[in-house]
Amino acid sequence: MQRRALLTAAAATAPAALAAPALAQAVPEVRWRLTSSFPRSTDILFGTAERMAQRVAQMTEGKFQIRAFPAGEIVGGLQALDAVQNATVECCHTATYYYTGKDPSFAFFTIIPFGMTERQQTAWFLHGGGLSQMEEMLKGYNAVPFLMGNTGAQMGGWFRREVKTLDDLKGLKFRIAGLAGDVFAKLGAVPTQLAASDIYPSLERGTIDAVEFVGPYDDEKLGFARVAPYYYYPGFWEPCAQTHLLVNQQALAALPAPYRYALETACAEANTDMMARYDQGNPEALRRLVGGGAQLRPWPRDVMAAGWRAAHQLYEEIGGRNERFRKLWESYRKFRDDQFLWFRVAEHSYDLFALTAAQTVR
Amino acid sequence: MQRRALLTAAAATAPAALAAPALAQAVPEVRWRLTSSFPRSTDILFGTAERMAQRVAQMTEGKFQIRAFPAGEIVGGLQALDAVQNATVECCHTATYYYTGKDPSFAFFTIIPFGMTERQQTAWFLHGGGLSQMEEMLKGYNAVPFLMGNTGAQMGGWFRREVKTLDDLKGLKFRIAGLAGDVFAKLGAVPTQLAASDIYPSLERGTIDAVEFVGPYDDEKLGFARVAPYYYYPGFWEPCAQTHLLVNQQALAALPAPYRYALETACAEANTDMMARYDQGNPEALRRLVGGGAQLRPWPRDVMAAGWRAAHQLYEEIGGRNERFRKLWESYRKFRDDQFLWFRVAEHSYDLFALTAAQTVR
Repeated sequence: MQRRALLTAAAATAPAALAAPALAQAVPEVRWRLTSSFPRSTDILFGTAERMAQRVAQMTEGKFQIRAFPAGEIVGGLQALDAVQNATVECCHTATYYYTGKDPSFAFFTIIPFGMTERQQTAWFLHGGGLSQMEEMLKGYNAVPFLMGNTGAQMGGWFRREVKTLDDLKGLKFRIAGLAGDVFAKLGAVPTQLAASDIYPSLERGTIDAVEFVGPYDDEKLGFARVAPYYYYPGFWEPCAQTHLLVNQQALAALPAPYRYALETACAEANTDMMARYDQGNPEALRRLVGGGAQLRPWPRDVMAAGWRAAHQLYEEIGGRNERFRKLWESYRKFRDDQFLWFRVAEHSYDLFALTAAQTVR
Repeated sequence: MQRRALLTAAAATAPAALAAPALAQAVPEVRWRLTSSFPRSTDILFGTAERMAQRVAQMTEGKFQIRAFPAGEIVGGLQALDAVQNATVECCHTATYYYTGKDPSFAFFTIIPFGMTERQQTAWFLHGGGLSQMEEMLKGYNAVPFLMGNTGAQMGGWFRREVKTLDDLKGLKFRIAGLAGDVFAKLGAVPTQLAASDIYPSLERGTIDAVEFVGPYDDEKLGFARVAPYYYYPGFWEPCAQTHLLVNQQALAALPAPYRYALETACAEANTDMMARYDQGNPEALRRLVGGGAQLRPWPRDVMAAGWRAAHQLYEEIGGRNERFRKLWESYRKFRDDQFLWFRVAEHSYDLFALTAAQTVR
């Protein structure tokens, strides 16, 4: 919708006493639809869009209303970007790594295997040029991105049998997508795509050997522990996962400036809130999962090391045929290596001592 | 200022055409002063208040203006809470552990020795009851708190001589304040208070042996490496440091609802932005410091372990005579131990491998 149309609509519905142009501009009624890539069942993910919408309404006296629809109600979860691009909806809440089929460069904005953790990825977006590179790329899809929620480091998924060495991955049918699937293919596994509803029966029958999802809070609902009890960590292909609000360019341009700022700031608040909800919810869920039979297993070091080599080889290969990917990888890698250097000092040395001190210091 | 007074003032200055009550309420002019506990020289800290103020102005079409003053221009950095309580200013940007002299319970809201890291502390505030406990306590000081910025894990400070064992702390004159000073006193050190301008000459002359400040980005400006080259990590007494906007209760109550929501949301955005700026700025500063002669040293494990015991003993002692402290410590400790349990799994195991993988995986 164009700005003029919006203003006219607002003026038409405003009480006569408020019909002066300056006022119509100050408080037009705007209604948007948001399509989420996430179902209602992943309530933290889906709820993040609702929380953002509530804040926007509060800051605009209810004049700017955004209604969030779960995946599948307007379009499917993986069609969210298309729906924004062609203006089926004004905005979506999504993870851009769903669109690596369009361009693998989309992966950087959610996460790449052996990428940065949440704090580091956020610093890259806000003060390392990440968001401006994303904005530049998204122009080609008629969309503008805002950070809106992160899951933190994910788990490595559920396995029917233990993985004791790298050899145990050979031929293993693993439900995992995108660049992470490409990394596992290099390690000898067979990445497999399955609709969500088919995962549990496929694991039960042994049609697949393993599945990865998110972390304890979301994983618990799916009941995988009963059929694939070995629960690996960390999900080295998702040391965090950033989700975004993507807004149709014309819809954004049509907003009065204060509404645009309210939208942007509400996304920033929802971004922090989602991370905090996961951090609050994961410990209890993990405890219940372990109580219910999940067997926690760290990845063997040879799997991690082979994964590291495979991922970096993959980035060189893709960069060789995709200039945008090559440039993004260069920027991302330099920022990541600097962050890793700094986090080794104060943050990691603290964790190394404190996370186990209650058990080890007497 | 009361709500009625605000509305009257707004109506008086509004153009005649906008003088209907509904409008005056929608767009009153509000001007606030913010006193910061931080000087301009700690530009990330001070800049956080300015960034928040800019956002609030953007969301209110410039009608709600907040002017930030560095420490010392209106009141001193440690008088910020008093200035809010007695309505000298409408709000302040501060770290509540400056007020442990009023009540040691204030420490929890910034950080306590061996407390939570930034993600964990944020989860406690937003979804672990931390913020509501803080709001309850701050009512007694006529103030309402909003999260507004975190430094992340700090460094352990600058030492003239190496600390190789716990014994090397005996009699060591260390500029460190609050509960952290009490912990170091239990370890045999002599915590010392000094005005900021006296630190460098005191270190140079040997009147003090050591000083702690923030992290590489802020520490670099003070040039301590020249007189106290041993730069210890981590600052186990500040695994993060949360700062807040504290708002005078009456000033907040007088705001129109959309302004209040804009203020709250702008604080949330500034909260994330400050952390990201530190994360972006610290690696380069650390590299320059090391290039300029700083000698990085991890704390010996016996110092960390003795610190852990001393801190937990201190919390029991204070809790024995301060009921609020006891309840806060109970809530904080339970949440911390749950967070530590969860972070040991996905986050820490990823860090343990990835932070050094570029050097160790061939």
